[in-house]
Amino acid sequence: MDKKPISNELVGLAFEPREVSWTQKDVMLYALGAGARPENDLDFIYEGKGPNVLPTYAVIPGGVGLGGMMGKVDMKLEMLLHGEQSIELYRPLPPSATVTVVGRITEVWDKGKAAVLGVESVASDADGELFKTHATLFVRGAGGFGGERGPSSAGINVAPDRAPDIIVEDVTRPEQGAIYRLSGDSNPIHIDPDFAKLGGFGRPFVHGLCTYGFIGRAALKALCGNDPSKFRSFSGRFADQVYFGDTIVTKIWKTGAGEAIIQGETQKGKIVLSQAKVTYGE
Amino acid sequence: MDKKPISNELVGLAFEPREVSWTQKDVMLYALGAGARPENDLDFIYEGKGPNVLPTYAVIPGGVGLGGMMGKVDMKLEMLLHGEQSIELYRPLPPSATVTVVGRITEVWDKGKAAVLGVESVASDADGELFKTHATLFVRGAGGFGGERGPSSAGINVAPDRAPDIIVEDVTRPEQGAIYRLSGDSNPIHIDPDFAKLGGFGRPFVHGLCTYGFIGRAALKALCGNDPSKFRSFSGRFADQVYFGDTIVTKIWKTGAGEAIIQGETQKGKIVLSQAKVTYGE
Repeated sequence: MDKKPISNELVGLAFEPREVSWTQKDVMLYALGAGARPENDLDFIYEGKGPNVLPTYAVIPGGVGLGGMMGKVDMKLEMLLHGEQSIELYRPLPPSATVTVVGRITEVWDKGKAAVLGVESVASDADGELFKTHATLFVRGAGGFGGERGPSSAGINVAPDRAPDIIVEDVTRPEQGAIYRLSGDSNPIHIDPDFAKLGGFGRPFVHGLCTYGFIGRAALKALCGNDPSKFRSFSGRFADQVYFGDTIVTKIWKTGAGEAIIQGETQKGKIVLSQAKVTYGE
Repeated sequence: MDKKPISNELVGLAFEPREVSWTQKDVMLYALGAGARPENDLDFIYEGKGPNVLPTYAVIPGGVGLGGMMGKVDMKLEMLLHGEQSIELYRPLPPSATVTVVGRITEVWDKGKAAVLGVESVASDADGELFKTHATLFVRGAGGFGGERGPSSAGINVAPDRAPDIIVEDVTRPEQGAIYRLSGDSNPIHIDPDFAKLGGFGRPFVHGLCTYGFIGRAALKALCGNDPSKFRSFSGRFADQVYFGDTIVTKIWKTGAGEAIIQGETQKGKIVLSQAKVTYGE
């Protein structure tokens, strides 16, 4: 199959629907990769208490849409950066399920040097739509095709200029990425020191979506009392790398009814997830 | 199918051969459960370096023999204690394989209050026998059937009365059991505080075979330079519980060519694996 070049014509391109299944074991393994621990998160890693499913697990079956894109769009994998991620849940994720995932390209922007692609995945089961995920991908070196720059998101979900209402701190293990990658994203840059150096990094770093899982888990506990049925949506921008052993500091500002602005930082104050927002039922 | 009572007549009882498969992901997940970390054990948790397979992974497919016994012998699961474990490898374990496991009861002893059963599993692939495992199970309350007491193993593989040649220390994580149990042994006593109390324990404790994995991994590194092809056998007795967060201290005495006596202790000096022995090629 011929791959299409990056251009505005990609907007609306849909991928073949794919069937994706998961089991209790899959969601518990994911939770451990996202830093769940028995003392705080037993319900998410023990089938005897459910298991409940972390809302951010949606990115795993939702990521299938990205796989579809790789097969249809002409781009180099090593030039890809994960820019933004959002999830929206219509019901709590079941501990085991088979869903149909439909992915499509929702936007293409020309940032000059880089192209930006938005990819949406909608997952449905027999009861209807279950969740939607959206990822923004920067493709370095793929801009300049004469497209629009797209809107600026600079002013969206900016952290208030006051102390956070809640701060959650959670350390990543040296083996965090080795666990997280067993949920499917086996990019060597997150475990192989030599490969990380090739990519221009001093050492392997935490998957952006693993950080996303840590922060989503912190928000679930702080805002929803660990009840996934109250968790509605979570969006954010990947701003910088987290390294293994770093502490992820989740700062939460309650900004309205069922709405909070989130910022993820390391123990050194480096912002790693910015302009993030969680919505939830109270 | 009628289950047979525990008696001498069980000796030689064989279980239906079972086919067991594993994948790269399975052996990497096991290694993480057995405490492998990127800084020391990358080859065992990253397919880009193999993955190599920890020799103690044999207990996972070998455990299928135990499952066979449960279906044929009349005993209560909650009365079982894992007494001893040994593995013998004829070739390094492949990172993915399908093997046929044949299990049988090798001995039955009457210790008065308890019965002791020995169960052997032999695993073969297309190239012949791959490994053999042997487990000794104490069945509390099942003795007094008029059998022999069996030989004493008190003098076997006793630690020499001198300082160890090598000491390896390795901390268990609070979430160690939550990871380990995803390799198949989901007994709640290793994760559920309520269930552990029902069983007479103050809190969940580390799977004996997880401790076995930690100590086997320490021996593999110290004696074989992390080369699984040099590892031949490993036997030992479970002497006491390890709790999550404990440090496992592996003491190694080289006692002959390709032979070492091992003792596993906690950071407090409590012996948790005794009369253990590893044989290896140099």
